[in-house]
Amino acid sequence: MAPKLDARVKRTYPGALREILATNLRRVRAERELTQEALADLCGIDRTYISGVERGLRNLSIDNLERLATALRVEPWQLIRRPDGGR
Amino acid sequence: MAPKLDARVKRTYPGALREILATNLRRVRAERELTQEALADLCGIDRTYISGVERGLRNLSIDNLERLATALRVEPWQLIRRPDGGR
Repeated sequence: MAPKLDARVKRTYPGALREILATNLRRVRAERELTQEALADLCGIDRTYISGVERGLRNLSIDNLERLATALRVEPWQLIRRPDGGR
Repeated sequence: MAPKLDARVKRTYPGALREILATNLRRVRAERELTQEALADLCGIDRTYISGVERGLRNLSIDNLERLATALRVEPWQLIRRPDGGR
């Protein structure tokens, strides 16, 4: 029996977005000269969770994306845009 | 005793991002002339969940944001950017 659509879609994810976020988060955090621990204190997200996001291991929610962006003084979308600009 | 940082942060969220996503998703889905059900079929996310996202009730994950964006042929960041462009 063919797998259901949901299962097929799931197998292709996570896609590229986690890695884009991970790269951007590491870069912006470094630009702000914040340690993972300092960022964790600023936004109320556990340091180990932030570490997981920076390694592409976590499927971050948009509420937490907003928290991180607020703490880093960027717009949330800037954290998930490809560095080359994308479309 | 003062509430812990985490509790205070949580009280201020969800912020604006869910509403921005909700507005963009409704607009792009309409531009593609897709019903919620058709979009659900395309991306393997339940129709009722999509309905909840379009009303700002759901704290979508970035994996599912990517699924929606792929189905709608936009970049994920375009779904969370303010219509006025923001920064």
